[in-house]
Amino acid sequence: MVIVLKPHTAREARDQFIKELECYNGVSAHITEGSMVTIIGLVGDTSKVDQDFILAHDIVERVTRVQEPYKMANRKFHPKDTVIALKNGLTIGGDQLVVMAGPCSVESKDQIIEVAQKVKASGANILRGGAFKPRTSPYSFQGLRAEGIELLLEAKAATGLPIVSEVMSVAQIPFFKDVDIIQVGARNMQNFELLKELGHLDKPILLKRGLSSTIEEWLMSAEYIMSGGNEQVILCERGIRTYETFTRNTLDLSAVPVLKHLTHLPVVVDPSHATGITWLVEPLAKAAIAAGADGLMIEVHNDPARALSDGAQSVKPEMFDGIMTSLKRYADMEGKHF
Amino acid sequence: MVIVLKPHTAREARDQFIKELECYNGVSAHITEGSMVTIIGLVGDTSKVDQDFILAHDIVERVTRVQEPYKMANRKFHPKDTVIALKNGLTIGGDQLVVMAGPCSVESKDQIIEVAQKVKASGANILRGGAFKPRTSPYSFQGLRAEGIELLLEAKAATGLPIVSEVMSVAQIPFFKDVDIIQVGARNMQNFELLKELGHLDKPILLKRGLSSTIEEWLMSAEYIMSGGNEQVILCERGIRTYETFTRNTLDLSAVPVLKHLTHLPVVVDPSHATGITWLVEPLAKAAIAAGADGLMIEVHNDPARALSDGAQSVKPEMFDGIMTSLKRYADMEGKHF
Amino acid sequence: MVIVLKPHTAREARDQFIKELECYNGVSAHITEGSMVTIIGLVGDTSKVDQDFILAHDIVERVTRVQEPYKMANRKFHPKDTVIALKNGLTIGGDQLVVMAGPCSVESKDQIIEVAQKVKASGANILRGGAFKPRTSPYSFQGLRAEGIELLLEAKAATGLPIVSEVMSVAQIPFFKDVDIIQVGARNMQNFELLKELGHLDKPILLKRGLSSTIEEWLMSAEYIMSGGNEQVILCERGIRTYETFTRNTLDLSAVPVLKHLTHLPVVVDPSHATGITWLVEPLAKAAIAAGADGLMIEVHNDPARALSDGAQSVKPEMFDGIMTSLKRYADMEGKHF
Amino acid sequence: MVIVLKPHTAREARDQFIKELECYNGVSAHITEGSMVTIIGLVGDTSKVDQDFILAHDIVERVTRVQEPYKMANRKFHPKDTVIALKNGLTIGGDQLVVMAGPCSVESKDQIIEVAQKVKASGANILRGGAFKPRTSPYSFQGLRAEGIELLLEAKAATGLPIVSEVMSVAQIPFFKDVDIIQVGARNMQNFELLKELGHLDKPILLKRGLSSTIEEWLMSAEYIMSGGNEQVILCERGIRTYETFTRNTLDLSAVPVLKHLTHLPVVVDPSHATGITWLVEPLAKAAIAAGADGLMIEVHNDPARALSDGAQSVKPEMFDGIMTSLKRYADMEGKHF
Repeated sequence: MVIVLKPHTAREARDQFIKELECYNGVSAHITEGSMVTIIGLVGDTSKVDQDFILAHDIVERVTRVQEPYKMANRKFHPKDTVIALKNGLTIGGDQLVVMAGPCSVESKDQIIEVAQKVKASGANILRGGAFKPRTSPYSFQGLRAEGIELLLEAKAATGLPIVSEVMSVAQIPFFKDVDIIQVGARNMQNFELLKELGHLDKPILLKRGLSSTIEEWLMSAEYIMSGGNEQVILCERGIRTYETFTRNTLDLSAVPVLKHLTHLPVVVDPSHATGITWLVEPLAKAAIAAGADGLMIEVHNDPARALSDGAQSVKPEMFDGIMTSLKRYADMEGKHF
Repeated sequence: MVIVLKPHTAREARDQFIKELECYNGVSAHITEGSMVTIIGLVGDTSKVDQDFILAHDIVERVTRVQEPYKMANRKFHPKDTVIALKNGLTIGGDQLVVMAGPCSVESKDQIIEVAQKVKASGANILRGGAFKPRTSPYSFQGLRAEGIELLLEAKAATGLPIVSEVMSVAQIPFFKDVDIIQVGARNMQNFELLKELGHLDKPILLKRGLSSTIEEWLMSAEYIMSGGNEQVILCERGIRTYETFTRNTLDLSAVPVLKHLTHLPVVVDPSHATGITWLVEPLAKAAIAAGADGLMIEVHNDPARALSDGAQSVKPEMFDGIMTSLKRYADMEGKHF
Repeated sequence: MVIVLKPHTAREARDQFIKELECYNGVSAHITEGSMVTIIGLVGDTSKVDQDFILAHDIVERVTRVQEPYKMANRKFHPKDTVIALKNGLTIGGDQLVVMAGPCSVESKDQIIEVAQKVKASGANILRGGAFKPRTSPYSFQGLRAEGIELLLEAKAATGLPIVSEVMSVAQIPFFKDVDIIQVGARNMQNFELLKELGHLDKPILLKRGLSSTIEEWLMSAEYIMSGGNEQVILCERGIRTYETFTRNTLDLSAVPVLKHLTHLPVVVDPSHATGITWLVEPLAKAAIAAGADGLMIEVHNDPARALSDGAQSVKPEMFDGIMTSLKRYADMEGKHF
Repeated sequence: MVIVLKPHTAREARDQFIKELECYNGVSAHITEGSMVTIIGLVGDTSKVDQDFILAHDIVERVTRVQEPYKMANRKFHPKDTVIALKNGLTIGGDQLVVMAGPCSVESKDQIIEVAQKVKASGANILRGGAFKPRTSPYSFQGLRAEGIELLLEAKAATGLPIVSEVMSVAQIPFFKDVDIIQVGARNMQNFELLKELGHLDKPILLKRGLSSTIEEWLMSAEYIMSGGNEQVILCERGIRTYETFTRNTLDLSAVPVLKHLTHLPVVVDPSHATGITWLVEPLAKAAIAAGADGLMIEVHNDPARALSDGAQSVKPEMFDGIMTSLKRYADMEGKHF
């Protein structure tokens, strides 16, 4: 941590401040004095030192953290890739490429089983489907909720595909007992009470990036889950909010190699939500693999024009089949298989 | 709602699509045909028409909503300002200017009572204080939680000031029985399960703007609460996320007159969280009043350099006293009083 | 400047690097060594040290500048406010409040003289008008160009108001001989060749903030002009680009007190371009004065619905007259006069 | 174009407005009337209709353009890909993949010739190098300017590689007589006076995306050049400004397939400037090809730690050689060759 003092700080105030800093266990402070500026370098275990606490001192002009504030998610402390194994043997984060495909919302038994069979036939290895739906408008379809989870489990039974679905509150967690991966949506990335509870489960969590979250904040949210004991976190880039209006969000593919550098956790990409446009799914799915992603999440609906949510970004099963053919060639190139 | 069809759409596909649109009760469709473009104007009650559903049709190029998707929060349907009255008679949204002042976190009985007395003496009419704290890091102080609420109630008893504090989950709601205003933080603005529950209370809700929420999304979140039956919603602008790094967020003061135009709900401004810098609080608080705000939320701490959270942006009681003197003159100018 | 080295950097590489750093005249380096991190504090005159040059060393993880990279624009070196005096005695940056009002584009002699007379009658003290117009589309009206400047000069002769108009290229500078203030538009804020040329003039330059420029970049552009010898720079906040779409841009009023803190240069605010909506001009103009602005730029057109550019944001003379009445009261409050 | 009128607009005002609209040649207006809203659909050649002009009418609430405002750059009017041929036979926009490699700044004859030979040996087919340099600080190295162009021409003579270099003002254009491709930098994307001049040349222009430009604004800038007569425009995505601070900018790879959809012009990607980090160049260059880019621009410097600009993002020739090997496999996959 680096602290810059205001110009003309009195020596006594400075010395008093340094004494205070050294009250932190295992932290030591070193002064670099210039004519216009005084810099204090703070080294040791600074993860407990609160930046706001430092800044609140009148003599401080600026504070910069130079070490990452996350530990369990940090590749520096865990150099080896985390590989998460599902019950059916599928692994995420290793040399298998996961494709999570399915409808935005589960709508009926027929719909979800039909989609599940088709995406499986095309090579998808996980079924996605929304039961509890975060909708901007209170007047929009809110999902089949508990019943939707039941239908997903029937589709799992029918096809053998593991399932992933989104949880929106602590009270809903019990419904997810047999769900293979619990998704935390972008709007809940900093729902800390929810993250804490998920930290007590023994189940993989797919953590989507918040609409305007920095990579560091995202890793701090992963740290919330991990520090509770659950180290099975999968990160999912799904586009960030920018000024550009042509696409729904701006897919940040540089986040993929950046995350692979900073953390040992698996990284998947959701081009459907990122762009909101079906014809962008294929080129960006290919690009995601090329950038090093461990998997993809793709919305597939048997009848997008009758979908109860997000029809605009759902590809049809035939289109998905074409996408998978093309993705397989890219996976090969990256030494990965489905 | 306006729908633009793709060029060269077949007449039958178009007619079939229009039939489908007119299945919505009370909606009628009118065609404007040009050489390069076909536009469908959809009028009537389009609030139930799902934009995504429309976009998912292959023949559709673009959809634009031309009426606001919110109703209860919409000034067009409720031209008169909403004025919320607290039990002690204080009103929000009328000609009283509310100032909610107090520490970021409640830390001890002495601290909160001391701050409460001081801000009251300076003219604040509501006490703020965090009990349940949303912190980016799991390793930071998470608030005194239920005990913090108790201490706030003691400060309320000691000073007579109504209190406002943040709720972070449905499970915490019971602790807020005697809290005067429940705050929803920026990170929970789209925590829809929480909003729904708050919609069933008979208590004012202070809804902070999400870090990267549009004004329309914000009003849709207000609509979630209102459509549940609770129409006492206060909107709080607290800065949005932009590329600028000098301030913690960018305070969007144009949101104040824009909201006053679009909605009848009261609007307050939080310059402390918006900027993260104490010396910016006064000029921006004055500007907020000039822009038409109904109130302010300001962080005040008796000893910022020892605050357990957000010390950097907390002003000291003496500084707050000076700010209040200056705000009173601006309130006068706008025909408001404390 | 603070440099963080990569973990496990060899001692020799580090020492070699420090020797290199100390080749800069008047710079000295101090090492703070922790178990996980090595920090080098660089003090002295680091304004010539290139951050990119440092970062390009393999052993460097991160570099942070702790001193502002601008000097002539820096209040630390010039604590006193710069007050710019025009030929007619009007001052900018002192206790006079300037209001630059007029049409987006100069369209005809009658139009510009009529508007000039009306805004003068309402209290404006500078006439604005666009002759060379930056338009997004090559098919839009590009301004009357040199002829527009002639008409502005006629309006100046008729009313005695000093004039401000935008320059778009070095080749146009000669036309501005008798223009009182030359404006650099947002899109040219980093047109460095133009800034250099303007640095050789003896004439006030109104430098608008770029659409997505940080405050620091903006001050560096002011520094370009000042380092050429022309220290008469006026900064104009005109809204930044964010994800919010209701207003054309997001007016960043916190920039006003931030600039007053960082620099001694005058600061004016343009609520017309920032919002693009006439009914937002008055509340935001008042807020700008409350935030500490030295002046305003407001678009006024005698017949907005027939304006050749930006009619949507132009107020009519009568509305402007009402705005001025209200602004005078705010100016009084801030101890300023017109 | 779609125009929404304010509620309760008088019939006469509406009819008068429609008459005005129909004064535009070849434009016709159709009314859709609802109980709460009146929509006017405007069809025909609306490219000359000014949105601001419409909005300035008191009775208008909102205007939306439904047809693209660009024509010459629009794929709807020119379905076939534009393929630009350089004098040495290299083509851009067809099935050749172009790689423009070289240093940020030309620094000396030895440097530029050495880099040119090395990048050519690795497979690059165009040499890039900055002579006129846009630098944020007036105190940074501003490039060798005219002499830099001379050195580039020597490197071209020595290696046979065509060259691309950035122009910063109209006055510099004569120096580019023998330069193969003229680059317009991000900061000049809306320097309209420069674009107009470049429109009169018979030479390919590489137009970088502005730091916060929408795709539509970018295409309008291409339209400026094309409407002057020069249709040889190459678009270069180089990252946009967002709130994320880990990378210098956020590379918007969805822009690649979006542009391929909207326009017939070639699209290249610059991962070096977008990220500012050498180890991100390879994964994002691969991703760019997967997303459909026609080429890449990559910074290569023989000695980055001594580069006079942007050393931090320059790869060394050996690293570049490895990147090229990997890119060739991706090019093959997309049916492209160097």
